[in-house]
Amino acid sequence: MFRRIAILGTGLIGGSFGLALRKHVPEARVIGWDRPEVLRQASTIGAIQEQNEDLPAAVRDADLVYLALPIGVTLDLLPTIARFVEAQALVTDACSTKTVLCRSAAAHFSGNARFLGGHPMAGREVSGIANADAELFRGAKYALIGTEGDSDPRVVKLAALLRQVGAVPVWLDAESHDRGVAYISHLPQILSVALGALLNHQTDEKTGLPLALAGPGLRDALRLAGSPYSIWRDICLTNREQIDSALESMIQQLDHLRTHLQDRALENEFEVANELYKKLRGLQ
Amino acid sequence: MFRRIAILGTGLIGGSFGLALRKHVPEARVIGWDRPEVLRQASTIGAIQEQNEDLPAAVRDADLVYLALPIGVTLDLLPTIARFVEAQALVTDACSTKTVLCRSAAAHFSGNARFLGGHPMAGREVSGIANADAELFRGAKYALIGTEGDSDPRVVKLAALLRQVGAVPVWLDAESHDRGVAYISHLPQILSVALGALLNHQTDEKTGLPLALAGPGLRDALRLAGSPYSIWRDICLTNREQIDSALESMIQQLDHLRTHLQDRALENEFEVANELYKKLRGLQ
Repeated sequence: MFRRIAILGTGLIGGSFGLALRKHVPEARVIGWDRPEVLRQASTIGAIQEQNEDLPAAVRDADLVYLALPIGVTLDLLPTIARFVEAQALVTDACSTKTVLCRSAAAHFSGNARFLGGHPMAGREVSGIANADAELFRGAKYALIGTEGDSDPRVVKLAALLRQVGAVPVWLDAESHDRGVAYISHLPQILSVALGALLNHQTDEKTGLPLALAGPGLRDALRLAGSPYSIWRDICLTNREQIDSALESMIQQLDHLRTHLQDRALENEFEVANELYKKLRGLQ
Repeated sequence: MFRRIAILGTGLIGGSFGLALRKHVPEARVIGWDRPEVLRQASTIGAIQEQNEDLPAAVRDADLVYLALPIGVTLDLLPTIARFVEAQALVTDACSTKTVLCRSAAAHFSGNARFLGGHPMAGREVSGIANADAELFRGAKYALIGTEGDSDPRVVKLAALLRQVGAVPVWLDAESHDRGVAYISHLPQILSVALGALLNHQTDEKTGLPLALAGPGLRDALRLAGSPYSIWRDICLTNREQIDSALESMIQQLDHLRTHLQDRALENEFEVANELYKKLRGLQ
């Protein structure tokens, strides 16, 4: 197993990964790198055993480097990490889009340490080390950019480690990942934001309508709209084409339902959506 | 206060209203009308004290008639209720759209018992007497079609009764109601169904993508898609124009975001939606 794991970015994902390691893989030594106040909090809750604010020193001697930082920061740091990481190490990340990142990593990690892109499908509307949870990965799909048959021992070890913390690896290529998350994650996010903004624009200052009628069902539909723009900025910058294409399909779908509000086509779409919801509930 | 209350339709809403009356207005006698097996269940859980499968007999002598039936059935029954109800009684309903229903009621209840349209904003994805809850109305907005200053003692009593069971009356006209619910309830419903159907259409049979990546965030976005078509059929039939108009605005909003995926306009819409979500959380 990995003996020394450096977590770069100890927020919700990195902090939870650290807590999960302490709980399920106690033999590994965990080093954290982040801003001093975040590192202090990560140490206090036991997510890391060592802290180091110096990036080269933090990654040196690590046999696994786990990047849990915003996409833009991750892209910026790849050259530095590639320069200081051991040649025998594995570097992986937890970013929400993969094509741009894996392309950049391929350039920087050629003939050096191995890079394997990853994405835990375990986000939340909350963020930060204060919300870290040792069981965040339990039952969650974990996208890995590669093939299950990869026999590199470092890759085999990472997949085993992820299973140890409760995650379910899903192997696929970066483009399939980005198209997939455009539909199951980025599209629902944009829909929720669009609905929230529309309701605000439509609300009359004097009467408070239509918002004055809102009930708990609306809160569920707007839950994702509570997610901060700072995360979504980088996602939209690195997955624009796939999000655009998913939005185009969604607009066509809405046009279709709009034309068929009073006939059997609406019933068919309700049945398909009902089935899908039941399947999702059963899965999770 | 009302002495004898007939609840027509003892499913989720009617059954919960009965339970709420038993708990908060124990001096009223509650009669139920529904199919025999539903009435038996309503009696067993204490939502009603008397049951009557004969509609004229059930409404006769009631000073409040509470209609908690599907929109189509309610429209069909209005003439019969108007014929058998006492002239001193108040008739109210709990249907999700109000313009068509209140127009029909106005024709049938002229010079007879008083009709006042209502709509508790307290739905759930589950339905039926098995899910009835004495506190379903607690904190929920309750649309009443009329004006708060209405001095008809029956109307004053109904508003007081609704407050006793925990509801918050919101007075407005039928058209404002139907436009409002098109935005805050019917639009989110159609969006959830459209998303669910689209994801199903887009999923590859062989790889299972994109659904194979789905996490808990998607389940929230699709929760409303679990709602059965049978309810929504009548809503779409009686509120087509307002839903069509809300869908048109939403499509424009999505087109706007699609054009601005990488600039400040997206940030602005995120901020507006974030604010709205926080406000909604604070309200409820």
